[in-house]
Amino acid sequence: MKRYEKFADDIAELIRTGVLAPGQKVPSVRHASRTYGVSASTVFQAYYLLESRGLIMARARSGYFVCEHVRRPLPEPQATLREASTTEVDVSELVFSVLSSIRDPDTVPFGSAFPSPELFPLPRLARSMAHAVRDMDPRSTVADMTPGNHALRRQIALRYMVGGLPLPIEELVICNGALEALNLCLQVVTRPGDLVAIEAPAFYASLQVLERLKLKAVEIPVHPREGIDLEVLEDRLERLPIKACWFMSNFQNPLGASLPEERKRRLATLLARHQVPLIEDDVYAELYFGQHAPKPVKAFDSEGLVMHCSSFSKSLAPGYRVGWVAGGRYAGQIERLKLMTSLSASVPAQAAIADYLQHGGYDRHLRKLRYALESQRNAMLAAVARHFPEETRVSRPEGGYFLWVEFPEQVDSLRLFQLALAQGISIAPGPIFSATRRFGHCARLNYGHPWSLASEQAMETLGRIIRSLPGTN
Amino acid sequence: MKRYEKFADDIAELIRTGVLAPGQKVPSVRHASRTYGVSASTVFQAYYLLESRGLIMARARSGYFVCEHVRRPLPEPQATLREASTTEVDVSELVFSVLSSIRDPDTVPFGSAFPSPELFPLPRLARSMAHAVRDMDPRSTVADMTPGNHALRRQIALRYMVGGLPLPIEELVICNGALEALNLCLQVVTRPGDLVAIEAPAFYASLQVLERLKLKAVEIPVHPREGIDLEVLEDRLERLPIKACWFMSNFQNPLGASLPEERKRRLATLLARHQVPLIEDDVYAELYFGQHAPKPVKAFDSEGLVMHCSSFSKSLAPGYRVGWVAGGRYAGQIERLKLMTSLSASVPAQAAIADYLQHGGYDRHLRKLRYALESQRNAMLAAVARHFPEETRVSRPEGGYFLWVEFPEQVDSLRLFQLALAQGISIAPGPIFSATRRFGHCARLNYGHPWSLASEQAMETLGRIIRSLPGTN
Repeated sequence: MKRYEKFADDIAELIRTGVLAPGQKVPSVRHASRTYGVSASTVFQAYYLLESRGLIMARARSGYFVCEHVRRPLPEPQATLREASTTEVDVSELVFSVLSSIRDPDTVPFGSAFPSPELFPLPRLARSMAHAVRDMDPRSTVADMTPGNHALRRQIALRYMVGGLPLPIEELVICNGALEALNLCLQVVTRPGDLVAIEAPAFYASLQVLERLKLKAVEIPVHPREGIDLEVLEDRLERLPIKACWFMSNFQNPLGASLPEERKRRLATLLARHQVPLIEDDVYAELYFGQHAPKPVKAFDSEGLVMHCSSFSKSLAPGYRVGWVAGGRYAGQIERLKLMTSLSASVPAQAAIADYLQHGGYDRHLRKLRYALESQRNAMLAAVARHFPEETRVSRPEGGYFLWVEFPEQVDSLRLFQLALAQGISIAPGPIFSATRRFGHCARLNYGHPWSLASEQAMETLGRIIRSLPGTN
Repeated sequence: MKRYEKFADDIAELIRTGVLAPGQKVPSVRHASRTYGVSASTVFQAYYLLESRGLIMARARSGYFVCEHVRRPLPEPQATLREASTTEVDVSELVFSVLSSIRDPDTVPFGSAFPSPELFPLPRLARSMAHAVRDMDPRSTVADMTPGNHALRRQIALRYMVGGLPLPIEELVICNGALEALNLCLQVVTRPGDLVAIEAPAFYASLQVLERLKLKAVEIPVHPREGIDLEVLEDRLERLPIKACWFMSNFQNPLGASLPEERKRRLATLLARHQVPLIEDDVYAELYFGQHAPKPVKAFDSEGLVMHCSSFSKSLAPGYRVGWVAGGRYAGQIERLKLMTSLSASVPAQAAIADYLQHGGYDRHLRKLRYALESQRNAMLAAVARHFPEETRVSRPEGGYFLWVEFPEQVDSLRLFQLALAQGISIAPGPIFSATRRFGHCARLNYGHPWSLASEQAMETLGRIIRSLPGTN
């Protein structure tokens, strides 16, 4: 990391923690240079970067000020549900009908599950791909099958190690994206009819997978900042024969919540006490806005109970379909199931990513990507504040690319979804994130696309539609 | 196809059908040129090609003769089993222990499931890949997800059409190889506990999948030339609540058998009468040695009951993991299940193959591949005749790259497998192809690798080991 980037991060942290408040003037270049012992040009570059990240803005002849993203502080969404229940899942049809209706590329993609492909270094990746296939040993077409390309697995293991979680390369099984990894993990530790603890709200694909495998959901509420409610989980683990947990510990989809480290540690202890495995979906881990990469729960697991699933789809190579699982004590079973299910991930895609990780500048790309997402988050938060009704609540995620919006109680988000779609705007309505069709007045909004006039106008239109719904003002 | 290739195929057909017998002289160049109205140079080129295919050989100053591949006619394996039974499948462990033991690249790979990667146009494919990713529209990383890259699906649909089976592009779902397609199809039409008709012997992956999904197998015997026994199947369909069939209609793995067209038609009628879906595994269809591509059963299905699964893994692009299913009436359900299971096949791999199919010369490559496999088959058949005991029976497949060998009754092929492996030679022992551990005196041998002195010596060693086993001479 360059010196000015480091300095920019320090200032960003001051803004994040409120030391520098919205509207406040940031130290002058001369002052900052003297105070922090860096050159004036470093400060200039840092401020320029912070401006492009949407954190500060220049006012003519007055210097830089912290952006007033919001005209008022936005309340966060409320904690979700606390009643105990187990639920047969039956939400797939709704999810499919929502997803298929938003495929039109001309729709403003607030309902999309993907960030903009323009945020990724596709030309550089293409070079890595061309290089990898040109030099490919024909034998690798067999040798790189499950558990996967050795160079790639080594690079992934290195990244774990740098993140403070050394693990043996043998734990790693390359899969067709994280989704296949999650599917395989769940099948390894459950049988039809079993209970699985999931989040409420939850990523809809997990609901679909539970439904498909005839598993029953035990919903655990998620706090919008602090992640799943450990007290509720503890109670459920004590009272119900839960066979597995499936949680996102960092930048949870859709809420954006992350478990603080202390709570990750407690979760690991809880799992160990009950000997219940955790399928940890951590696909957004690289998209953090803070100073440090968040750790996974797996970092606190000494018993091999955590299957840590991730991929390059959200951070580097969308469409390549290269994910992995660090399978803990279940790695061998996962590998076998993978062999029976789809034999292997695509060998050229694996080789291309291995090459890119070695030579492509992954960390530099990630820094750019994080800045872009953070500034887009800020832009969307500001638009929520500007255009949505006063009573709207909204999450303020410190990573990922989703906002979770709680409209006034009487807003029917499925109706909003239909009306917005008719205006060429997609949203992801709340009920697709629930095994029990909750969150009828909520929606997930994607800020993974460069902010534009069209985005701003779409937010305005959404606000107008919301106000036109019965019972709102 | 060039004129000399056509002429060579005509002569090959005469050899295949026995009109030209082993050891017989083929027409002289002058004679052939006059009789068939082709130029002498065409005849020369054709004979040269036939020689390289291992069908004829030149004798000094005497002209060309049909090769005597075999010192005696090899009897074919016997039809398999006729008793009715349904079976819980429990063979995965055995399969895995066999497969993992033969991964050593220094082993003579007669037990391998793959043909030699050297038979594939990997450098030309690499060019297609480089081209495809360089020009890739970023939006395709989302747009080419399930059901798949449109150009690729159109090329596949075109190939169906040329083969006499026009079908709507909407029926096609791109998958991670045929194996995933087969898995998805089976899950769409069955639930745990259901009965599924499979072949005996069967491809071991189908047994593993049945085991994993807790399905019960109804084994249908396969005739080594004519494919599954339709009388037995009809009886089982009448007496048992079979929910699906899973058959390979062409060059069945491991027997190499193909249903003649008339029997394919009967099978389709039978399925229609009972309204039972067929999962048709047709991954070897392009590897035919005859004049014409064999049709799939799907060509005779007017009710959309057949899910036709295939891939490019055996014919073009091993390791790319691009397969597909033409799903008939189940296409929509398969697509949804694919979305939930692994979202999509690798987008670059799809684009590369689409590019290759348009510009790479697929048909030219396939002709070369077929010739290579046919000549390797001939070499291995000759080696079986030379080195294995008199009572050995062996299939004579007209496509694919597997021989099925029936040793004398008392030979224990699992023991043979162990002893051969100790000598650096792998085989695929018969019991891994059976839900009921039959075929204990059989083995599948892979001739998908260029024939070499090492291959010949390995066959000799195998013959010696077989003779050393108790009860053989």
